[in-house]
Amino acid sequence: MIDKVIAHIEANKNANVERLLDFLRIQSISTDPERKGDTRRGGKWVHKLLADCGIKSELVDTPGHPCVLADTGPAKGGGPTVLIYGHYDVQPVGEESLWDSPAFEPTIRDGTIYARGAADDKGQVLTHLLAAESWMKVVGKLPLRVKFLIEGEEEISSPSLEKVIRDNRERLACDYVAISDTSKFDETTPGITYGTKGMVYKEIVVTGPKNDLHSGSFGGTLTNPGNAVASIITSLRDADNRVTIPGFYDDVVELTADERTRMKDLPFDEEGYRTATGTPALTGEKGYTTLERRWARPTLDVNGMFGGFTEQGASTIIPAKMSAKISMRIVPNQDPDKISKAFDDAVRAACPKGVRLEIIHHGDCAAYLSPLGSPGMSAAAAAVEAGFGKRPLFIREGGSLPILPMFKEVLGADSLMMGFCVPDCNAHGPNEFLSLSDFHNGTKTAAHFAHLLARSA
Amino acid sequence: MIDKVIAHIEANKNANVERLLDFLRIQSISTDPERKGDTRRGGKWVHKLLADCGIKSELVDTPGHPCVLADTGPAKGGGPTVLIYGHYDVQPVGEESLWDSPAFEPTIRDGTIYARGAADDKGQVLTHLLAAESWMKVVGKLPLRVKFLIEGEEEISSPSLEKVIRDNRERLACDYVAISDTSKFDETTPGITYGTKGMVYKEIVVTGPKNDLHSGSFGGTLTNPGNAVASIITSLRDADNRVTIPGFYDDVVELTADERTRMKDLPFDEEGYRTATGTPALTGEKGYTTLERRWARPTLDVNGMFGGFTEQGASTIIPAKMSAKISMRIVPNQDPDKISKAFDDAVRAACPKGVRLEIIHHGDCAAYLSPLGSPGMSAAAAAVEAGFGKRPLFIREGGSLPILPMFKEVLGADSLMMGFCVPDCNAHGPNEFLSLSDFHNGTKTAAHFAHLLARSA
Repeated sequence: MIDKVIAHIEANKNANVERLLDFLRIQSISTDPERKGDTRRGGKWVHKLLADCGIKSELVDTPGHPCVLADTGPAKGGGPTVLIYGHYDVQPVGEESLWDSPAFEPTIRDGTIYARGAADDKGQVLTHLLAAESWMKVVGKLPLRVKFLIEGEEEISSPSLEKVIRDNRERLACDYVAISDTSKFDETTPGITYGTKGMVYKEIVVTGPKNDLHSGSFGGTLTNPGNAVASIITSLRDADNRVTIPGFYDDVVELTADERTRMKDLPFDEEGYRTATGTPALTGEKGYTTLERRWARPTLDVNGMFGGFTEQGASTIIPAKMSAKISMRIVPNQDPDKISKAFDDAVRAACPKGVRLEIIHHGDCAAYLSPLGSPGMSAAAAAVEAGFGKRPLFIREGGSLPILPMFKEVLGADSLMMGFCVPDCNAHGPNEFLSLSDFHNGTKTAAHFAHLLARSA
Repeated sequence: MIDKVIAHIEANKNANVERLLDFLRIQSISTDPERKGDTRRGGKWVHKLLADCGIKSELVDTPGHPCVLADTGPAKGGGPTVLIYGHYDVQPVGEESLWDSPAFEPTIRDGTIYARGAADDKGQVLTHLLAAESWMKVVGKLPLRVKFLIEGEEEISSPSLEKVIRDNRERLACDYVAISDTSKFDETTPGITYGTKGMVYKEIVVTGPKNDLHSGSFGGTLTNPGNAVASIITSLRDADNRVTIPGFYDDVVELTADERTRMKDLPFDEEGYRTATGTPALTGEKGYTTLERRWARPTLDVNGMFGGFTEQGASTIIPAKMSAKISMRIVPNQDPDKISKAFDDAVRAACPKGVRLEIIHHGDCAAYLSPLGSPGMSAAAAAVEAGFGKRPLFIREGGSLPILPMFKEVLGADSLMMGFCVPDCNAHGPNEFLSLSDFHNGTKTAAHFAHLLARSA
């Protein structure tokens, strides 16, 4: 069966590209109120593709943009159920002049499609839709029960998604969630992302005098909010770049020897990484490698700081107020609520006498780690190898994806993240792209995945 | 003689007020290019007053606004020479709606003149001009040689003054400089300011990655310029609020037991001071009182800090760059060059690995301390007591006046600062004022000062 499905995908290679170009022409910019109709068209396009090939599909309205819910129905003989998650909305165009061809006029150059959404996520989510369609056309059904949840608000932080998932808990019930919205390890090596960090984002606002004061007349007699903020921030980390917040590391799942070896063996180009960032030297928590720090160690970073005299030249004031935005990336099994409280306590304890302190909580989410040993993960890895002809590397991601812990909590399902684009695909910038071969191999991977996951149980 | 001069001043009390109102109507705003002509008119007004009463006076052009140089010529029998320094330019009006009467339509309410420049410095410098005029009218000469240097660029940091003084070193030669551009101790107590702090103003700019980076993907693997700036700043002071820069206190002239007692005995309202600033508590260098910290201890303050994400909400970036403006107020005998270098060295030593550091020098000036035991200081104190009917308190000032060390260096003369306005006279704000009695007492003080200083040698 799978051979016939793959043969069908090979035979329709060019037609599938045309389908992608069609999808990419829809200006489904979820951030842009003027593109509300176009964004809905993106959802309808997905809905139609699934419905046309015989999969029960529904365009579900939300307070924002609609999402597509679809279901192939129970598979003969049972087996696992997988929920394909993705999104049809895209980022804004940004500075048009930086695009070599218009963002919504997809253009193929040297075997690569350039367009907004090519990689994030239209090109990637479409591989699963086309694979399902191929199964339907060739076999008349899928080898396992497949559900789809394709939303239109991912680029605006999915404000409606949690309610949709909670309201449709039964309807979305599944054993695994499959997502293709991450990237390969590098241009030539496929990858499966199995872990993301969580986040706790804070802002501290320190106020002292009721207005800016003359630093000559008043300096030295009261606490300067600028110096206070600096000392609070400094107190939160030690000389080894470890976070000093009491209890911060208590629940951190340490890397296993096996994981450390695996990471060490990855062909990670440390100097290339350094050069790409432009930083003069790589630094970080003592006792860990750069990859370990990126993927598995919690961090604390200043995101912004502002107050007092910030213009050109010199003005001798004591600022009335100073603010700093500080975020922590957390790892399994750190609890965002616990870390949030520990941060607040540590900041309060570090705040010097003579100023008022306000702590603003800007949001948080948990980290996520997909079990490497699950049957689903094995099927995903085998599918990627079949689709790309090369074993995927298992990678983690320093960024945060709040949907992953949400899927785990509400549906009890782990996520399998097969990424088909290259890491530097200009996802949110000009000239976003996806190579035709990655698109084609991704479609084959998706077809194999259905086949292999069905047999895994 | 002095009695007759004082009698003349008493007799011309109202006429003198009219002269001040006339002076205050001139819109000599030195910062405003459109008031260039008006500013010059201010200088001409001063020049004419002196010339009209028989004192040799000259309006000297500079690249900016002119200054008035005048000289009574050698006194019979020698004696000390005093240079009266002041300025005829004023601050801009600011927000007009905050003024109860127009800034350049001087208005008398309840015995107080409200107008821009009433206190800073037209009303105060005029006391010396009117006193000299009274001496000339009553006696035909002054009891000592008096020179005048009245500039028109004080409110724009006196860009032309240093050259004028250096170019006219012989012409301005004097034993003392007398300045009335400070304030009394409080509303009911006159004061003589005998010390000002110096300043060294720096900006540190720390850069890391070549652009803002995603704090998830890159956090923990490189030095965050925000955290780096915070730790540099924090390293510069200890828990006792002492500056930790090596050598910082080496040349500080410690307060004498006598000075400390004198300060302790001053009727300083600590809680009133705290309430006026709005700070929740007064803090500062361990082992010193609030007044000692204000007047005699060097300080280090953040003036402003900025970088990274500074808008509303949360953005998870590692800032490419973070800057902080930091100034130090220094005291006698700290050397600005030495402190500047020590600061740079300490900041470089404190800068963590993995970022680039730039230190910008925004300027510096030395502190100044006028000897309390000089004959000139005794004459000034006796003159203030004679003019105001109450002994003056000797006060120091946390602000910086670069002209004082300049007079000391170029002319070898110490400055005697007799202040006639109240401390909170709205000098740079709306509704600037000077009470008629302070103006009158100041004029008498200036007349007595000439008399007493002449007899002091």
